[in-house]
Amino acid sequence: MNDTNTTTADYNMTGDNDRSNVLVLGAGNFGTSLSFHLASMNETVKMWSRDQKVVTSINEDHVNSKYLTQVTLPDNLSAVGPEMNKQHFKACDVILMSIPTQHLRNILAKVKPFVKKRHLLIMANKGIENSTLDLPCTILKDCLGETIANNAVYLSGPSFAAEIVLKEPTCVAVASKNSERLEWAQRIFHCPHFRVYPCNDVVGVELAGSIKNVLAIASGISTGLGYQSNTRAALLTRGLSEMTRMGVKMGCDPLTMSGLAGIGDLFLTCTSEKSRNFTVGFKLAKGESLESITKTLGSVAEGVATAKSAYELCRKLKVYSPIIDEVYKILYENKDAKEAVNDLLETEPLHELHMIR
Amino acid sequence: MNDTNTTTADYNMTGDNDRSNVLVLGAGNFGTSLSFHLASMNETVKMWSRDQKVVTSINEDHVNSKYLTQVTLPDNLSAVGPEMNKQHFKACDVILMSIPTQHLRNILAKVKPFVKKRHLLIMANKGIENSTLDLPCTILKDCLGETIANNAVYLSGPSFAAEIVLKEPTCVAVASKNSERLEWAQRIFHCPHFRVYPCNDVVGVELAGSIKNVLAIASGISTGLGYQSNTRAALLTRGLSEMTRMGVKMGCDPLTMSGLAGIGDLFLTCTSEKSRNFTVGFKLAKGESLESITKTLGSVAEGVATAKSAYELCRKLKVYSPIIDEVYKILYENKDAKEAVNDLLETEPLHELHMIR
Repeated sequence: MNDTNTTTADYNMTGDNDRSNVLVLGAGNFGTSLSFHLASMNETVKMWSRDQKVVTSINEDHVNSKYLTQVTLPDNLSAVGPEMNKQHFKACDVILMSIPTQHLRNILAKVKPFVKKRHLLIMANKGIENSTLDLPCTILKDCLGETIANNAVYLSGPSFAAEIVLKEPTCVAVASKNSERLEWAQRIFHCPHFRVYPCNDVVGVELAGSIKNVLAIASGISTGLGYQSNTRAALLTRGLSEMTRMGVKMGCDPLTMSGLAGIGDLFLTCTSEKSRNFTVGFKLAKGESLESITKTLGSVAEGVATAKSAYELCRKLKVYSPIIDEVYKILYENKDAKEAVNDLLETEPLHELHMIR
Repeated sequence: MNDTNTTTADYNMTGDNDRSNVLVLGAGNFGTSLSFHLASMNETVKMWSRDQKVVTSINEDHVNSKYLTQVTLPDNLSAVGPEMNKQHFKACDVILMSIPTQHLRNILAKVKPFVKKRHLLIMANKGIENSTLDLPCTILKDCLGETIANNAVYLSGPSFAAEIVLKEPTCVAVASKNSERLEWAQRIFHCPHFRVYPCNDVVGVELAGSIKNVLAIASGISTGLGYQSNTRAALLTRGLSEMTRMGVKMGCDPLTMSGLAGIGDLFLTCTSEKSRNFTVGFKLAKGESLESITKTLGSVAEGVATAKSAYELCRKLKVYSPIIDEVYKILYENKDAKEAVNDLLETEPLHELHMIR
């Protein structure tokens, strides 16, 4: 049951001539690529940015001057900002949020008066809040209430922004407790080259999307130390076990971790230098300091903050998490990466489904 | 309960001075690398080969003249053959079989009089028999009886032979219905750089190890056509769903597919040109004929035969398997690879756990 007292007809997405108006909060790489995709699906898209230069460049030059700068944005994609006001929200049916998780609570406090139950709210961020160990779905519930959190749709999966704008075939998962909203989100996003698979396990999808960034750092460290394919495959599979154990303790379906938001995104980020998280690990293994890496990268590697939350969450949940623990120690306790590997190799080889079944 | 009427003490593996004698059937890449590993663990290893040249080169030059030719084999690794006789089996405690699945039944018929219940039998091959759609565990049961099949240990996981002999950290799964045998296998193989995880789902481990070769061909095709990271990650995740659906229909734990034998090996073979299966797909996409590819490769790409069995098995099990089906059609019905991709992209995006939950 959809408790918003709206019908499908209200959603303004029934036919080809009846498009949605989408407001996108967050003009980073991922937000820009999803905006580009929705605009290319003929939705009318407005990206909000707090940066006047970005707003101007999008509106005057059809380019985001900070992210994905090589892409010409279509005419039905414009920008609003830097202030955020009621009118932007009144004019839209769909709100897509692509905000770093550590800033999400602040942004939600600002938009709280403007977000209504009629809005299709799509959350596209990944991470665990450091101060609370909350996932975005819990932060949303705290800030905007249970109904809006339950009606929201959470999008995650293996999707490099740079490839989305090239229209490379991409599959993502969308999760929601509200099946009508799930269908709505699927309808505005899905096309042959951007395939959208529904799923009902919101916490599972969000947890998977967060923890995989920590494992991407682990994979970068392994590659940076010169380990080869067998080692990386082992690391990711055993990392998946840790993620799955966490999910089981949090009431998720363990198989969600084996879906697009979990191993799909693991496959992607753990095997590619295109991933900022992988790059952080790679450079750490080469002896660069976290501070220097963060400066060079420019954009945030979500996994660095998530490693801290994940480590603490595993303590809280009493989950056995040797790989996450070593990533945490390398990042936050200056542990030598090579020593961390040796410690991992000395752990007991437990049953494959230890603490899962 | 172990129905072999032997005790741990009989196993001849109780202390450092009390090593096992291992007979390895199959002197290919994987058999040679596992022999090398066991010899480096101080077991006494004899590799059987039907090729007199290989037997001579191992015994006289400490090199397998056909596979992993760059590796110097240790003194405690020798060869026997080309004839196969009772004495080889009498002298060993452990038999390791690394034989292409399509030849397994023939070899088992030959060794039937020699394999006893006291032997620890370790099966390290992957595939599905074309003529019967049987997994190695079923072929073993057919040929040597249920007791030997139930006591056997099935080894699988992400382990390129060339990396095993470099002592690159590697993790594999071992599955058996007999927990004592499982421990025995773990004990002779496990060390810090070759980690061995026990598991109880024999059919799951064998199915995963087989089907991943078909998906590696799919991944090679995708890469050969120029598709990028998002596409490959999606292909592998949705391929995993097909493998998992098959497993569920065959009574396996769906999570076995997310273990080392499943996604572990998927990570490995689907992302590397070191995989023969990946290479077959890559060359097919570039327009080379299967016949020509098979000639050039020299060694067998197990996934080519498995694709046929997998396709037929999915029909038999009534499993929805769009990716396996397209690989089959490209390999056996001359379907154009690009057209296969387009057909895949037009399929309905079903629930992520369709036919799994």
